[in-house]
Order: sequence, then structure tokens, then C-alpha cells
Amino acid sequence: MTDRPGLFDPVLARGEARAAVADEAWVAALLEVEAALAQASADAGTLDRADADAITDACRRPVDATSLGEEAAASGNPVVPLVARLRRGLDGSAASGVHRGATSQDVVDTAAMLVARRAVAAISADLRTGADAAADLAAAHRDRPAAGRTLLQQAAPITAGLRCAGWCAGLDAAADALAAWRPAVQLGGAVGTLAAFDGHGRAVRAALARRLDLVEPVLAWHTERGRIAELAGLLGRAGASVGSVATDLVLLAQTEVGEVREDVPGRGGSSTLPHKRNPVAAVSARAAAVAAPGLVASLLTAASLHEHERAAGPWHAEWRPLSELLRTVGSGASWLADALGHLVVDPDRVAASLDVTGGLLLAEQATTGLRARLGHAAAKDLVTDAASRSQDEGRPFADVLADVLADALAALDDPPADPAAEVRALLDPSRAVGEAAALVDDLLASRSRETQRPGEHADRGAPPDKREDHP
Amino acid sequence: MTDRPGLFDPVLARGEARAAVADEAWVAALLEVEAALAQASADAGTLDRADADAITDACRRPVDATSLGEEAAASGNPVVPLVARLRRGLDGSAASGVHRGATSQDVVDTAAMLVARRAVAAISADLRTGADAAADLAAAHRDRPAAGRTLLQQAAPITAGLRCAGWCAGLDAAADALAAWRPAVQLGGAVGTLAAFDGHGRAVRAALARRLDLVEPVLAWHTERGRIAELAGLLGRAGASVGSVATDLVLLAQTEVGEVREDVPGRGGSSTLPHKRNPVAAVSARAAAVAAPGLVASLLTAASLHEHERAAGPWHAEWRPLSELLRTVGSGASWLADALGHLVVDPDRVAASLDVTGGLLLAEQATTGLRARLGHAAAKDLVTDAASRSQDEGRPFADVLADVLADALAALDDPPADPAAEVRALLDPSRAVGEAAALVDDLLASRSRETQRPGEHADRGAPPDKREDHP
Amino acid sequence: MTDRPGLFDPVLARGEARAAVADEAWVAALLEVEAALAQASADAGTLDRADADAITDACRRPVDATSLGEEAAASGNPVVPLVARLRRGLDGSAASGVHRGATSQDVVDTAAMLVARRAVAAISADLRTGADAAADLAAAHRDRPAAGRTLLQQAAPITAGLRCAGWCAGLDAAADALAAWRPAVQLGGAVGTLAAFDGHGRAVRAALARRLDLVEPVLAWHTERGRIAELAGLLGRAGASVGSVATDLVLLAQTEVGEVREDVPGRGGSSTLPHKRNPVAAVSARAAAVAAPGLVASLLTAASLHEHERAAGPWHAEWRPLSELLRTVGSGASWLADALGHLVVDPDRVAASLDVTGGLLLAEQATTGLRARLGHAAAKDLVTDAASRSQDEGRPFADVLADVLADALAALDDPPADPAAEVRALLDPSRAVGEAAALVDDLLASRSRETQRPGEHADRGAPPDKREDHP
Amino acid sequence: MTDRPGLFDPVLARGEARAAVADEAWVAALLEVEAALAQASADAGTLDRADADAITDACRRPVDATSLGEEAAASGNPVVPLVARLRRGLDGSAASGVHRGATSQDVVDTAAMLVARRAVAAISADLRTGADAAADLAAAHRDRPAAGRTLLQQAAPITAGLRCAGWCAGLDAAADALAAWRPAVQLGGAVGTLAAFDGHGRAVRAALARRLDLVEPVLAWHTERGRIAELAGLLGRAGASVGSVATDLVLLAQTEVGEVREDVPGRGGSSTLPHKRNPVAAVSARAAAVAAPGLVASLLTAASLHEHERAAGPWHAEWRPLSELLRTVGSGASWLADALGHLVVDPDRVAASLDVTGGLLLAEQATTGLRARLGHAAAKDLVTDAASRSQDEGRPFADVLADVLADALAALDDPPADPAAEVRALLDPSRAVGEAAALVDDLLASRSRETQRPGEHADRGAPPDKREDHP
Repeated sequence: MTDRPGLFDPVLARGEARAAVADEAWVAALLEVEAALAQASADAGTLDRADADAITDACRRPVDATSLGEEAAASGNPVVPLVARLRRGLDGSAASGVHRGATSQDVVDTAAMLVARRAVAAISADLRTGADAAADLAAAHRDRPAAGRTLLQQAAPITAGLRCAGWCAGLDAAADALAAWRPAVQLGGAVGTLAAFDGHGRAVRAALARRLDLVEPVLAWHTERGRIAELAGLLGRAGASVGSVATDLVLLAQTEVGEVREDVPGRGGSSTLPHKRNPVAAVSARAAAVAAPGLVASLLTAASLHEHERAAGPWHAEWRPLSELLRTVGSGASWLADALGHLVVDPDRVAASLDVTGGLLLAEQATTGLRARLGHAAAKDLVTDAASRSQDEGRPFADVLADVLADALAALDDPPADPAAEVRALLDPSRAVGEAAALVDDLLASRSRETQRPGEHADRGAPPDKREDHP
Repeated sequence: MTDRPGLFDPVLARGEARAAVADEAWVAALLEVEAALAQASADAGTLDRADADAITDACRRPVDATSLGEEAAASGNPVVPLVARLRRGLDGSAASGVHRGATSQDVVDTAAMLVARRAVAAISADLRTGADAAADLAAAHRDRPAAGRTLLQQAAPITAGLRCAGWCAGLDAAADALAAWRPAVQLGGAVGTLAAFDGHGRAVRAALARRLDLVEPVLAWHTERGRIAELAGLLGRAGASVGSVATDLVLLAQTEVGEVREDVPGRGGSSTLPHKRNPVAAVSARAAAVAAPGLVASLLTAASLHEHERAAGPWHAEWRPLSELLRTVGSGASWLADALGHLVVDPDRVAASLDVTGGLLLAEQATTGLRARLGHAAAKDLVTDAASRSQDEGRPFADVLADVLADALAALDDPPADPAAEVRALLDPSRAVGEAAALVDDLLASRSRETQRPGEHADRGAPPDKREDHP
Repeated sequence: MTDRPGLFDPVLARGEARAAVADEAWVAALLEVEAALAQASADAGTLDRADADAITDACRRPVDATSLGEEAAASGNPVVPLVARLRRGLDGSAASGVHRGATSQDVVDTAAMLVARRAVAAISADLRTGADAAADLAAAHRDRPAAGRTLLQQAAPITAGLRCAGWCAGLDAAADALAAWRPAVQLGGAVGTLAAFDGHGRAVRAALARRLDLVEPVLAWHTERGRIAELAGLLGRAGASVGSVATDLVLLAQTEVGEVREDVPGRGGSSTLPHKRNPVAAVSARAAAVAAPGLVASLLTAASLHEHERAAGPWHAEWRPLSELLRTVGSGASWLADALGHLVVDPDRVAASLDVTGGLLLAEQATTGLRARLGHAAAKDLVTDAASRSQDEGRPFADVLADVLADALAALDDPPADPAAEVRALLDPSRAVGEAAALVDDLLASRSRETQRPGEHADRGAPPDKREDHP
Repeated sequence: MTDRPGLFDPVLARGEARAAVADEAWVAALLEVEAALAQASADAGTLDRADADAITDACRRPVDATSLGEEAAASGNPVVPLVARLRRGLDGSAASGVHRGATSQDVVDTAAMLVARRAVAAISADLRTGADAAADLAAAHRDRPAAGRTLLQQAAPITAGLRCAGWCAGLDAAADALAAWRPAVQLGGAVGTLAAFDGHGRAVRAALARRLDLVEPVLAWHTERGRIAELAGLLGRAGASVGSVATDLVLLAQTEVGEVREDVPGRGGSSTLPHKRNPVAAVSARAAAVAAPGLVASLLTAASLHEHERAAGPWHAEWRPLSELLRTVGSGASWLADALGHLVVDPDRVAASLDVTGGLLLAEQATTGLRARLGHAAAKDLVTDAASRSQDEGRPFADVLADVLADALAALDDPPADPAAEVRALLDPSRAVGEAAALVDDLLASRSRETQRPGEHADRGAPPDKREDHP
């Protein structure tokens, strides 16, 4: 998986995560870790600074991923040949200082954290971009009544803005959770004892964490893969948020619904159907989301199988699924940000959907409103009866209900002064959306507060303490 | 899945999580939510307190899960018939106050949070019990050299204590993550607008959250299932930690290794093999862990598919996998706590393992120690050569290396004053475990600090702010 | 999971598979295997027939699953206490003949095959019932034009019958694949050598296979779990077929589409929305399908981890996921059969959908028809242009296209004799469905042939050869 | 994923499957389908042969995957720009004949079958190579007693040959199942009606299937993805077989067990541990197997979500997981074939394992042998008692048992003539392996028969009937 995009990548690996997990990025991260390790050793006084600088220089020379990968087959990981290459290019004490005290897994795991951090940052940014677009839509359509649907049946009115606010909340929450993720340095030597550091292992580890801006763990996590499992879970959640919003978009864009469309000139045409305007971005976001849960399962399975001081298979089993999970969730987040950024809400179609049932969507409101007068059971029976008559007689529900209500109110022991006004109130659509506008306002206000005072709110992730659980 | 344990439950559904997710517990949680909703409505002034009390009383009457389930088939969820039953048992205003303003999903989702909270508490407690046992083992075996293994090959010495400390760290981290999980109330009405609460929806929601001690979300999360996805990820991580430790245990208990055994009288015998002592607890913990990732994937998939204002399938698809995931992770945590609590480390077998390679495990230490004298390449060649000679000649590696080292030191331009002392130092096993003892101390100290000052450390979960993101 | 349906079972565990995998069914299968083993031993001459008969009688006495399960915790599987119970109820040679030569896994695995066979039969029957209903619908609506949709956009006409034929084909193929599954007996003794059968092991195994009507494998498959993996794959495929058809149903039943509905009196009502008629069966089928892939992954993971002569965890890890997978796929198949059996196709709504785009669905047909006259590029441009004008001018596409076509034909060097007739032909909806009717006929004919001559067609599963690969 | 191997590919994407699913192979397959479609159209008389030949020539010109992929983003799939390119390079009737009647999905799906067929062939071949090596090992070690292990505890003797025979059986069965897979052509046009083929659609489809040697289905399977689900299941099974055998290998290669090693010069060294010889091939095979179940789940999930006449996301969601699944299972099969091909069984270590328990492994044999004399319960008690005494007294179990047996036999009412001979017989290791040798012979004989008469045995896949279920 090189830096050059592949055949399916523009559809299935959009966004910056793809490049962040490409082979070139992995090799660069491996070299970055080796260089930082040398400098950290100098910081801790176990390597001459001049040697560390020479190593750092050597780590700046490009290394071809393919040939490095070929050399890796003999040992099972790319660090063994990488270290050999670095040593060949250096003299004496510098050569012997390369990778000193570390094991291959230290370098691969720490590099994986660097790779993942960059991809996660890209994903979080795309999720936030999508959330921003959804927030703008929520504000713009705050008071626009729309059909709410349960089990894909129209159920009761919502506002288009509340729907968009829900998208915003989900994407924000996924981005927040990813932003709070704290990658950690890995350094333990062959078996986690730091034995080859001559007693300076923890000092080197602290310096390495500082240089790479990673959390320093209490123990090496060579076979305690909770960190990988945690990241997998967070990415799985992000993928789920993407998939759920994208599903809404493709459903709302259906020909028969048409409440939204992606407005991107030149995109979405069909090879044989000239009239079609496919919601390519939302479709691609959905495709990305479908692939995520299986990859999460692969990473969790691997994490559950690590044994002793380095796993015989489960460790290697992380590399591709982790890259692929970052890539596919990144693609989904990028496509969804694009879809929401170009989303056009069609006011006429939104209004038309509300009329499809001829007023049936007001049934719940009417039932609720009648309860005080008639009691729960009678109110429900009356509305249900009106719904049946509406279907039988082919008349709009609102009309039938108005008749039925007028009769029922008139039959009360204590009839209202102005029955017609009460009927109008019961069927007023503006009352039917409940607290939707206030809910949108709440959501936007909570976002605004977050943006102004980042870090003050527990949910958005306090600045991480980089040293973990240390005495 | 009733409260009565099933055929495979004692093996595959051990611990308190099983009862916490049993049908009886679900029904109780549904009733608890209906009762709390009534009281919350009274708190908000939308229902008479007397009616709320009558409803609360009605919610205390037992409901048979099987017959309730049968009635649920017509509507697709058990709240519809539950509400009908409650209303039948009440009069007038109390009957009409049952479930007022809510929709079935409000009750099921909030009940799911109650069910999950209890199961998660049980799981966390068992993880912590396991971690405590591992910590005790880490302290007891802090300085006991043991064979470290990578790719299931002996690699270099560790201490038995460091191994146990690694288990402790993983289980603690999994428990911490679960303990920080904050379940939220769900209340939105039919489509999330709170339309049937006559403008008091948010007030009722706040009261409901307060009464049930749940987070109050800004918006309803009927189709924004990040919360379910988050919980799935946390449980997946916990399962992975359990699986990884249990894998260590079954491997260390192998007949040929025998470094640990589970000491539980009357357990682990074989029907036909009288001499066997199977590590039943660790085996059962592993079995539980294998099942978790697939269930996480099911929940993530469902979460990614929710559409509009209630999902046509993905919502229902959460109930069994969520219960099953809590159950299986709970079983794994319970069995693992049992295994670690009864674990006996056999000092003789631990020592015997270290001798299996005739001293080869000291190779890394010797190489490291020689680097300063000979340079990296020469040091490695010399040790590799000694290893080959040891195998060819059938002599212990330590003896061959001593000879080789003596020759090499003698051949130096600047030979050491006491070559024999230097050889002894290079092959001293007590040096070979590096900073293992200090790492164990660090881990135990960080635990101890946590225990004394709970809540002061970010990683153990500050007391959750129950109102989320509100203006 | 007892025989008594649980809270969520009527929704999530419909059909006969639930009872087939209940604890009572598992215990019955374990007893059936022990009885058959005794009789097979008598067949092979290693046990007196009288003892075998006494054992068989003992196996007819009911055993409580819960208490058996409790006793299983000490050994990790229920066969150890079951054998102890059977022996306690018998005297001398009969007691010692119980379970003779077998190991626990032999009995559990063979019982699992019996349990699975019954559940698979129920699933296959429900899939076939669904396919039959789909075939009837395909015949009934063979010539009914309907809107075809790609990426949820209307694309081109199909027939309602072709859509139903596609459902039929998928369900048939899934049922065929399950019907061809051949469960095998497991008998190997403690480690697969049949060592405790005094040289008669293969003879007993053959007799056992014959008595239970199971395939006799060449080797024991205690840790070669290809058979479990195969079954998991087949069930995963069946779940996918169910899910895909159910997804079509919920989409076609949308309020805005309304082409189908489930016609089951008293089902599908809403607690607060009296007008709703939810497609409960299709929704429940979808819910079941969502849960299947994760369970398949769990079983495949377990299968990939079996080691040596009995796995330390992965074996136990099969029991619940296998039961749950059979249950959920069974539920999906049963609900889908119900949905298809009660499905009403609404001719008016089907026709209305076709009109939604004002004739745009005929674009492909027009393009294709014009190619011979104008060349591909010009034909496509012309149709695309008409589509644009239709949207700009707000006129039906068919009208605009008719104008455009007339102009284009008139401008040809060699204009047609009757341009109006050619335009009519190009826009004739009855031509637009291509070979749909013939495809439906093909599908129905292939089904009919299968039904008449079962067993003659390779794809429907030749009568299995019960002895596998034997010399 | 280009043809050039990536950084992790030599470890995680070994074997020919990698190249078979590379971007270059996908593009070649797309072009192959377009060419075959043109020729099939000529076969059916709907295109001039000269035009078909011109198209075929055009399809031979190389197309860069990256730039094609970039162009695909606008439409969501690579066929749209590929067809545009082909048409640009051709004149008049040939240009208009490109892709005539087909839709993008027809070409992608059929190309996917070609890609998968080549990868599956490579996987099957590697599985068979592994099975052959295992068969050779089974024959070579047919009579070598070895320790059998259950729950990772030594349980009873097997033969090394029987263990290898089990590997052979599993790999053969996985290869057989894959070899029986029958890929099908996809051709339906935009919505499956073949409407743009002017009535010749089925004829073109038949010719296309013939030319590409693919099954011709009754209906298009654009959204009936049972075929993809089936393939996923078969690959999941193959991965499970690979993983299970590889797990055995890494366990048997453990330092403390050492019964096998991979003998590949220059491979398996460690960067810091000169003495290590890691079983790199088996470790890499395991790593591959861990990743498979999650990918199977992704494909099954996608398959269950396809709707209407082309899925809005689930279709695209197949491309990467399918490629990745073929790649990872291919890598596992290739590494495992390598591991088994280089496997050295160490007779001394195999024998040493058998001695580890001091004869306890003969316990089952002794129990079985004593039953006739003493009855089941007394026999088991006696052996259990000897096992306890052996542990308490630190004497070999065999010695203690010999004493105990001699006493027991002497105390019988009817003591044997030569008690010592009977004791020797009860503890004769050659009897303890039961029918192991015959089972190995059975397995090898069944293989040999298959090899000699391929195609005659139902289980090895009869030559597939290429036309499926047709009238």
C-alpha cells in the first residue's frame, strides 16, 4: 500500500488517512523512532550526542519500502533489516549506538502510534468538518417542519434542523472520543525488562516519550494490547457514526423522497442513465462504514491472543487491519464531510413529504391534546377511528379528524366554548414538533461553548497527562 | 435467557453479569424506568404525585418475562404490552399517566443502560479482583528470575513478578476504562422532539436522569448509537485483556512448562485421564474471550445502520448481542479472577525453565556487556559463535561462552585486570533482568496511589458530570 | 436458554430453531449420543446388548439442564457429570459400559451435530417457504412494470415479478447450500486414537454413524474444525440472503413508496401513533440478519485456534455462538417466510412509483434505441439534453423527449417514414423491461424441475455419501 | 495495492494471491470482461465481429490503475472512466459497441470473479502443497509414539503421524471446498432486465459465460450476493484450517517442547538474541489467519445489506475486503506450505515429551485394560491412587502402577497365571496409541485414491456444470 493511490482508493480510501498509513509513512515513522531513540539515549547519557546526531542524519536518508519489506521476510518484521541498513551506513560507535537496547517491537509499536496519531488527527478533523456542516444545516433549518420516520414509516413531525442536529451530535461525540485518545511510547527491550539499557532504560524511555510527545506507560505493553483495542473501539465508533448519518443521507436522497441532494457538479452521473444524480459521497461513506466492524473484530481478536513477551502471530496480525481500519474510517469521514458540505435541503420536497399522509402525522399530537378532555383510552380510540375512516373514505385524515373531534367535543358534559378553535389548535403543525427548536438551540449552544473554551469541558478531553500512573 | 442458569452457563456465563442481563433483570429495568418516568413527570409538574405513586406501585408487581415476550411479537418490542398491562391495573388519571409522552424506545434504551450499568459494575469488580490477585503475585515474585519468551521461544530472562505486573496493568486499564463509562438516559418521545410532553419534555428528562442517576444528553440518541458503540468497544477491550492473560496462564500451565497451576480442589479432573489437572478457570476465561470480538462487531454494525428516527431492524438487533457480550465478558472476568486468585507459582518449575537452554538466555546480556569492549558487530559475532559451538559440542552455553570470553578479553590490546571477574559479571543472572524489579515497584506504587486517592487521577475516571454539554 | 421462550425470543428467536438449540434439546442430544454409542458398541461386539439396552433405557430418563450445568463447572463440560449420573443409575457391567471408550468431546461434538441438523432443517424449511412465497409473487406480478432502483435512485423499469424472482433465487440458493450440509459423527477417544476401544474403535464409529445417520469421517475432527467453519459459513450466507430480501421489503414498504405491505391483522401497530402499520416481520428479519456475521466470525476465530488434541478454550467457545447463530438465522428465516407469505403488492403504488420521474426511467431505453440511428455519443447527448430541459422547463421528460426525438429524426439524412411511430416505440414502457418476463419464466421453470426430480441436480445436494473418503 | 510488494507484504501477503488481487490484475480483469463482452455480442449477432476485434485490441492496451482510479471518484466505480477511455480510442461503430448493454456492475462483478478465481486457485494449490507435506510427514512418522495433549495438558499417547494426518485432512478439506467453488458471470444491464440488449441479452450472457468459462446464472445477482457470501465462507474455513495447523506448529516448536522446527537457513534469527530460531513461517501463517474472520464478517454484512437493483454502499464495500481476504488467506496458505515443507520432526524431543510425566500418559490404557478384571469404578480408583502416590513419593508413575497392579491382580479371586506379564502388557506403550496407525493408513489411502481418479469422488468437486438450473 504505497503512497500512490490505488485503483479503488479514490472511492474507498479518500482523505488524508490513506497517505498517513501508506508504506512510505510507516517507513518514515520507523526511522523517526530510531532517530528519537538515539537522541533520547544521548539525553539519558548513554550515547554520545555526536553519535546520536550521526544516527539522526542516517535516519533522514530515504529507504525504499518494497526492498525493505523483502528483507523483512527472513525475520518477520522490517526493523531487523532497517537497523542493519542504518548500521552499514555508519561507523564505529555510531553504528553500535543504532537501536541500542531496543527490540524490533519497540520500534514497530511506537511507529504504529505515530502513524495512527496522524491518521486519527485527519479523521477527527474530517469528522469535525462534517459536524460543522451539520450544525450549519441545523441552524438553517431550525424551524422547518419535516416528516419523522420510525421503522421507515412516517411517524410524526420533526424539524429538518433537529435531524441535522442529531448528525452533528453523533459526529462531534465520535471526534471527541478520538481526540481524547492518548498514544503511548513502547520501550521494553527484548522481553520488557529494559535489560540492555545498562540501568538507564526508564530514563531513555522518558526521554523518548518526551521527544515523540507520547504518553510514557508504567510498563511495556508488548503483549498488553489494551491500547490497540481501545483505538480499535474508538475507530469502530467513529465508523458507526459515519455510517448512520450516511444512511440517512442516501434514504433522504431517494427519488421518492428527494429531501436532500449532494450538489457537486460533474459527480454522480451514470454511464447509461443520463438523468441520474447519485449521492456518490454518501454512498462511498456508507461503503467505508460497512468494512469497519470486521476490522475492529480482527484487532480485538489479535489483542486477546497476545502471549508471554511477544506474540507468535497476533502481533504481526495488527499491522494490516490497523492500517486498513484507519484508512476506511478516514475515507468514510472524508466522504461524509464532503457530502454534508455539499448538501442541499429541498424545502419543497421536505414539505411534500409531510403531506404524503394527509395529516396522519398529527395523530400523536391530537391524541396527546385530547387526553385531558377524554382520558387516555378514549382519546386514542377516537384518533384511531379517525385514521381508519380516513383510509376507508379516502379523505384526508386532518379533515376526518376535525369532524370527529367536533362531534366528540360537542358531546362532552362540559363542551368547550369554541370547539372549532380547539380543533384547530389540536391540528396546528407548529405545535407538533414539540421542543425541537429548543433542542437545536441547546446543541448549538453546547458546541459554541466548547469552541470558545476548549479544554474546560470534561467531554472534549482535557489536555492529556503524558506520564501515566507513575509514582 | 432466564435467571435460572442454563446448561452451559456455569462454564460460559459465570459471575454476576449473567443475572444482571437475564430476562428478569430486563423486565425489572423496564418497570423501573416506567416508575421513574412517572415520578419525574410529577417532579416536573405534569402528573399528580398520587398518580405517580400509584404507577410506581403498579411497577412493583411482578411481570412474567415469557408471557410479556409473547405479547411483544405483535409490535416488535416488549414495552407496548407492558404499558398495556400497567394501564389495565390502574384507574383513570393514573392509567393515562403511564408512559406519558414516552415512546417504547425511550423505555427500552434507558432500561438497557440500567441493565448494562449493573453488568458493567460486576465486570469491573471482577477485573479489579483479578488485578489485585495479579498485583499480589507480582509482589510475591518480584525478584524471581524466569524465562521470557518471544514467538513462544525462550528469549531472555524476566522476573515472574514482572509478568504478573503486566497482567495487573492490563486488567486495571480495562477496569478503569469500563468504570469511566457514563450511561445516559434516553427520552425523546416518538421521534425525538419531546412533542407529547406539552413543553415540559426537557424538564421531565432532567428529572428522569436525576432519579436514575444517568447522564442527561443534549439530544435523544434513538438513532445516534455512539453510546452503544462506545460500550461495545470498552467491553471488547476488557475481553481482550482477559483473553491475553488467560492465554498466558494456559501456556504456563502446560505439562512441559508447569510454572503455574490453578489450585482448586475437586476441579479440573478428566473423565478418563485420572492424572490430569486441567486449568479449567483459565480455559473457560479464554473461551469467553474468543466470543467477544464478533459480538462487538455485531453491535458496531447495528450502530452504523440506524436511520431516521427509529431503525427498522438495527435497533432490535442490539438487544441480544449486548446482553451476550456483557455475559461473555463477565464470564471471562469472573473466571480469570478465580484463576488468578487460586494461582500457584511453582518456584522449581520456574527455575527449571530458565535452565532449559543451558544459559543461552544470557546471550543478550553478554552481547550488551561486550559492546563497550569489542564494538557491536564483534560482540554479536562472538556470542553467536559461542551459541553455535554450544549446540555443536553439546556443552552448556554458559561454559562455552566463558571460554570464548576469556580468550577474547585476553586478546585485547588493553585486557582487563581480572578477566574471570568480568566474565562472571557478564553472565550474572541477577543483572539479566534489567529494571524488572523497579518496574514492578512502579506498577504497585501507581496502584497504591490510585487506591488511596480515588478520583484524583485522570485515568481512573473523575466523578462523571451527569449533565452533558448543556448550556 | 431454556425451552421456555424468553423476553426477546418472540421477536428475535422466532421459528423452530430456537427450540432445536434450547438446553433441553442439547441434553436430549447428549443422551441420544450416549445411547447410540452403547448400541453401536453392541453392534461392534464390545458390549452386551442387554447392557446397551439398559444404558439406552437410562438415557431416556429426563435430566435437568440447570443442575447438570452446575455440575459441569468443575470439569468444564456437561458430559462428565452426565456420565456420572448415568453410571449411578446402573449396575455393574452396564454402568461400566456407559460412555466406554469415548471422551467428553466425542459426545458434545456429535450432539452438536444432531442439534445443528435439526435447527438447519427448520431453517432450510423456512427459507424454502419464503422462496415459495416469492415464486408465487413472481408469477403473479410477472408482467407488472415497476421502478428499478440503483443506489436508491430510480434507474430504469423492471417488473415486480423479476424483483420477487430475485428474492426466490437467493433464498433457494441459501436453502440448497444448507440442505447439502453433511454433519459427521465424532469419535476418537481422549486423543483421537480410539485407544480405549480395544481395537474396535473404527467398527464402533461406523456403527455409531449408521445409527445416528451421520457421515463417518476418516479421522476424528476434535481440533480440525473445518466442519464447524463450513456450517458457520453456510449460515452466514443464509443470514445474508434473509437480510437482503428483508431490506428490500422495509424499503418498499416506506410510507413514500408503499409498493408492498405486510397484511397481518393486529400486528404492526404503534403505542402512540395509531395510523402506523409497521412491517414487523421484515424488520425482525433484518434485526436477525444483522447479528449473524459477528457470530460467524466468532466461530471462524474459534476454529482457527484449536490446538493439539483438544483446544484450551476455543472448543468451549463454539457452544454459545453456534446455538445463537442457528437461533438468529432461524429467526430471520421464519420472520421472512412470514413477511413474504403475507406480502401484499399494491398495484397502484407500484404504478405511481413508475410515474414519479415523469418518464425519465425510459431514458436508457431511448438511448439504446437511438444508437443505431445516431451513434452512441449523439444518442446519449440527446437524451441527456432532454432530461435537462425536462427539469428546467418543469415538463414531463416523456413529452420533452418526444419533441426532441421528432426533431432529431426529421434532421436525419434518411428520416424514417413514420417518425411519430418510432418515437412511440422508443418510449413504449412494455419494451423497457427487456427480458424480465423470460427471466422470471426461467427461474420458475428451474424451480419446477428441481421439485419434480429432487436429487438429480448437483446444486440441490445429491444424497450424501455417508462414508467419507474411506478406502 | 499495486503489483509491487509493499512493506508488510512479504510477511503478510506471501504467495501468488497477492499479485492476483493487485490493482494491475483488477484492471486486466476489467479489460478482459469488456473484450469478452464484445466478442460475446458478436457471437450473439448483436455486434460486428470486426468491431468486437477492434474492441478486443483496445482492451489489450495498458491502463494505469492510479489514474483510472482517480477518474472513478466522480462516478463511484472504475468502469465508467474505463469505458470512456476505450471509446475514445475507437471509431464509430466499434466505439458505440464498447460495453453495449452492460452496466458498470456487470463488469466489476464478473471481473471480481476472474480475480477471485485466480487467487483461489493459488490458495488451493498452496493448501494442497501443505497437505502433501503433511501426508509425507504422516507416513514418515506413522508409528512414532508422541504425547497427545488436551487443554494443553499431556493426556495420552498418540503418534506423530496421526497428528500430521490430522493436518493433512484439514488442509485437504479446505482445498476441496475451495476447488468446488463455481464462479458465475454477471450480466443484467442497469437493473437486471437485460433491457439494453434488444432481446439478445440471454444469448450474450450465455456466450460471455462460455468465453470466460464461468457459470451462467438464471438471474443476475447484482443484489443477491449469496455467491460472495459463499466464497467468503469458504475462505474463512481455509483460514481456520491454516490457523489451527500453524498454532500446532508454534506450540510444538516451543523451546520447552521442541518436537518440531522449521529448517530454513538464514531465516528466523533475532536482532538481539543470537540463539533464537523463530518459526517464522508458522508465525506468519498464524498472523494471516487471525485477520480472516473479521473480513468474512465484513463481506457477510455487506451481502446482507444489498437492496433493490444496486446497493448504495454495500456493493462498493466488497472490493477491498474481498481482495484483502484472498490476500491474507493466500498468505497463510503459502507460509503454511513453506512451514510444513521445511518441517523437521525431532525424534529425541518427541520421545522426551512422552517421558515428561513418568508414565502417567499410560493411565488411560491401564484403566481400560483393568476394567474387564476389576470393573470400571475400581479400575479408575486404582489408577488414580497410583497417580497420587507417584506424585507424593516422587517415583515414576509406571513403577508405582506396576506395584499397585501386581498387588491388585494377586488379590483377585482368580489371579492371572503370569501377573508380571499382564502388568507389562497393560503398560506397553505400543498398545497405547490405539488405532493410530490404521487411521493414518486410511487417510493416506483415501488421498491416494483421490489423486489417481480425480473427479470421481463427490467430495473433491465434480467438474462443475457451467449452466446453472436452466430450463
